[in-house]
Amino acid sequence: MSDHHTYKKIEIIGSSRNSTDEAINNALAEASKSVRNMEWFEVVDTRGHIENGRVGHYQVTLKIGFKVSDS
Amino acid sequence: MSDHHTYKKIEIIGSSRNSTDEAINNALAEASKSVRNMEWFEVVDTRGHIENGRVGHYQVTLKIGFKVSDS
Amino acid sequence: MSDHHTYKKIEIIGSSRNSTDEAINNALAEASKSVRNMEWFEVVDTRGHIENGRVGHYQVTLKIGFKVSDS
Amino acid sequence: MSDHHTYKKIEIIGSSRNSTDEAINNALAEASKSVRNMEWFEVVDTRGHIENGRVGHYQVTLKIGFKVSDS
Amino acid sequence: MSDHHTYKKIEIIGSSRNSTDEAINNALAEASKSVRNMEWFEVVDTRGHIENGRVGHYQVTLKIGFKVSDS
Amino acid sequence: MSDHHTYKKIEIIGSSRNSTDEAINNALAEASKSVRNMEWFEVVDTRGHIENGRVGHYQVTLKIGFKVSDS
Amino acid sequence: MSDHHTYKKIEIIGSSRNSTDEAINNALAEASKSVRNMEWFEVVDTRGHIENGRVGHYQVTLKIGFKVSDS
Amino acid sequence: MSDHHTYKKIEIIGSSRNSTDEAINNALAEASKSVRNMEWFEVVDTRGHIENGRVGHYQVTLKIGFKVSDS
Amino acid sequence: MSDHHTYKKIEIIGSSRNSTDEAINNALAEASKSVRNMEWFEVVDTRGHIENGRVGHYQVTLKIGFKVSDS
Amino acid sequence: MSDHHTYKKIEIIGSSRNSTDEAINNALAEASKSVRNMEWFEVVDTRGHIENGRVGHYQVTLKIGFKVSDS
Amino acid sequence: MSDHHTYKKIEIIGSSRNSTDEAINNALAEASKSVRNMEWFEVVDTRGHIENGRVGHYQVTLKIGFKVSDS
Amino acid sequence: MSDHHTYKKIEIIGSSRNSTDEAINNALAEASKSVRNMEWFEVVDTRGHIENGRVGHYQVTLKIGFKVSDS
Repeated sequence: MSDHHTYKKIEIIGSSRNSTDEAINNALAEASKSVRNMEWFEVVDTRGHIENGRVGHYQVTLKIGFKVSDS
Repeated sequence: MSDHHTYKKIEIIGSSRNSTDEAINNALAEASKSVRNMEWFEVVDTRGHIENGRVGHYQVTLKIGFKVSDS
Repeated sequence: MSDHHTYKKIEIIGSSRNSTDEAINNALAEASKSVRNMEWFEVVDTRGHIENGRVGHYQVTLKIGFKVSDS
Repeated sequence: MSDHHTYKKIEIIGSSRNSTDEAINNALAEASKSVRNMEWFEVVDTRGHIENGRVGHYQVTLKIGFKVSDS
Repeated sequence: MSDHHTYKKIEIIGSSRNSTDEAINNALAEASKSVRNMEWFEVVDTRGHIENGRVGHYQVTLKIGFKVSDS
Repeated sequence: MSDHHTYKKIEIIGSSRNSTDEAINNALAEASKSVRNMEWFEVVDTRGHIENGRVGHYQVTLKIGFKVSDS
Repeated sequence: MSDHHTYKKIEIIGSSRNSTDEAINNALAEASKSVRNMEWFEVVDTRGHIENGRVGHYQVTLKIGFKVSDS
Repeated sequence: MSDHHTYKKIEIIGSSRNSTDEAINNALAEASKSVRNMEWFEVVDTRGHIENGRVGHYQVTLKIGFKVSDS
Repeated sequence: MSDHHTYKKIEIIGSSRNSTDEAINNALAEASKSVRNMEWFEVVDTRGHIENGRVGHYQVTLKIGFKVSDS
Repeated sequence: MSDHHTYKKIEIIGSSRNSTDEAINNALAEASKSVRNMEWFEVVDTRGHIENGRVGHYQVTLKIGFKVSDS
Repeated sequence: MSDHHTYKKIEIIGSSRNSTDEAINNALAEASKSVRNMEWFEVVDTRGHIENGRVGHYQVTLKIGFKVSDS
Repeated sequence: MSDHHTYKKIEIIGSSRNSTDEAINNALAEASKSVRNMEWFEVVDTRGHIENGRVGHYQVTLKIGFKVSDS
């Protein structure tokens, strides 16, 4: 067993009609379908679409860090 | 009719006693009084006032992008 | 009495299982135990831990500005 | 007559199906309909839409500087 | 009366033959001709023209924040 | 059908002997061999090799955003 | 005696009704009441309040570096 | 054979108990298990864990550039 | 016992005649004299003095994160 | 013969009435009059003068890297 | 005579015991001994030494742009 | 004798097969052949070439500050 680990980061954008926090969770839910060992996220950017003078979708760009499984 | 569009961005700061998301919507509500064709926003900065050791107002600086109407 | 004031900033990280906004308030609550005259905060970074494909903790790094008491 | 001048900057996004340089000129052409005394531009961001695996539109965000007319 | 306020920011460049501080005040003086409720400024950039090996004009780019009057 | 979408971004560098715009299209052409649903690109960096005192290759680093297909 | 030294940095905001340079000195004067061995400062941000269309207070955010006394 | 090449970049974090340089090599060793044609790396961030008042692990975030094999 | 924690960050500069890695450890050793519960560091800046055309001292600016003890 | 090389970078601004790409080549042509062994360039900034509501000159700021000849 | 010009930028640090503005002029005065056709400067960084709790020297880092004489 | 000094900065890239620290010293050694009065360096960027899945060369971009000799 190694005494060090390697991690990768991917960049992903989640969206939500309801809140920035839900947009983060939506991104994580989608990423978890194909990525294992996700450990942390970093918010890179927050933006959104406007519909009728209100937020239509919150869009949050994340970096997600996950452990490389055999490292 | 043109095959391209032109957009402008303005910088605006919304505030709310309740949440960062509401501060965003308050900024959009105010901007929509004078700006038409608003399409997207970008969060530039999040800060706020502190009252009695708690958040007094959340203040979110946005850039709002809108289509120039005759472009 | 002086006609100008001096402020200091400290950097602090609050966390919450529930929301980014609560993470901000948790940081302020903790800081208020030892810092007086806190006036504003600035969000520097938003990130968090992932547990079971969802946000485990939101972690928000703030700078908190407070007036130096005898300035 | 003053010995100094004041300038303002606005932020505008031009687009073009053909090139980044044309996107810049399209932004200037649109801005010149309502802004006088434009003197310089600064490219802030270059991006675009993708259609069928190729650039659909180049989108260039500019800041445009213009002299305030009675300064 | 609302319990929150909305602010806008504009970007403006003041200049002065004498000092950076005067360039800031020249920008504010010009802006105050058309903008009401100006509350704060942020220095974005300091530069200038050189004449005969000395500063010809100091040029200071500011963002000026002002309250939207009916918010 | 979901009311929100998830996007990923990859970082890719295209090159061209002829122009920066062609370097962008070369990157998109290569990416389209393995990535579906590409929607937008963002220019991150522009640089190049020099040969005989002229541009040998323009090299443009892009981020490409694409919709995760089943989101 | 060690052949190396350790320094700390604190972040402080000085203000002045008169000039940016005086705001820097006001910050240093206040910091010197509680910090010893201050060696250098770095200007992080310059801004201010506006009163009646002129600068009310210049506000300069500094980092101040000082030697840890027993290092 | 094409007269231009396409490269991709991935973001990876290597760690080491011994040095920042070894953390870089550990990241490359892990990446080389699944990525071919790696040509260069860029250090994005250096940080680490602290154990007993000393560095426990150095953690270096890299971007690794590799040639797309059939470009 | 709380289900969340609060952390603070301080900024410190370590130096070494021998290596950047040792400069980091020297900073941690000094900080550990007065700070408990240090958990991680982030390298903010690397620089140094030059003596006789060689590195005299490596100087590494770190942010050190530590848990607030009663949070 | 050394097993390593040293490079220097200079910062130069090229201009062109026709295109950003030509502005890059004009900068390289001028630099090649006095600099040997130029190997790569990095675009730092793109801006320009406006004449009659169109681009008068594109101005591209480059860093040019060249090998120190006897390294 | 060419219809375009080439400029170079150098980076220089001026200092003054009296003011930031004088530090800028001191840098220009020194640069003008060896550089011709200086046209503009950009302030990159402002810092200084502290002596006895006051500013000892203001140090302003500038980039100076000058026209390449035969371009 | 003047009561202030002027410094210049140059940008240089050192490389080494062995370590980032040696790359820094190699850059300084090369620079010292033509530059006198070098006082400090700042690390701007760290990257390198990859050979056979390991670091081939570490490449460290530095800014080197030196006193202008007659200032």
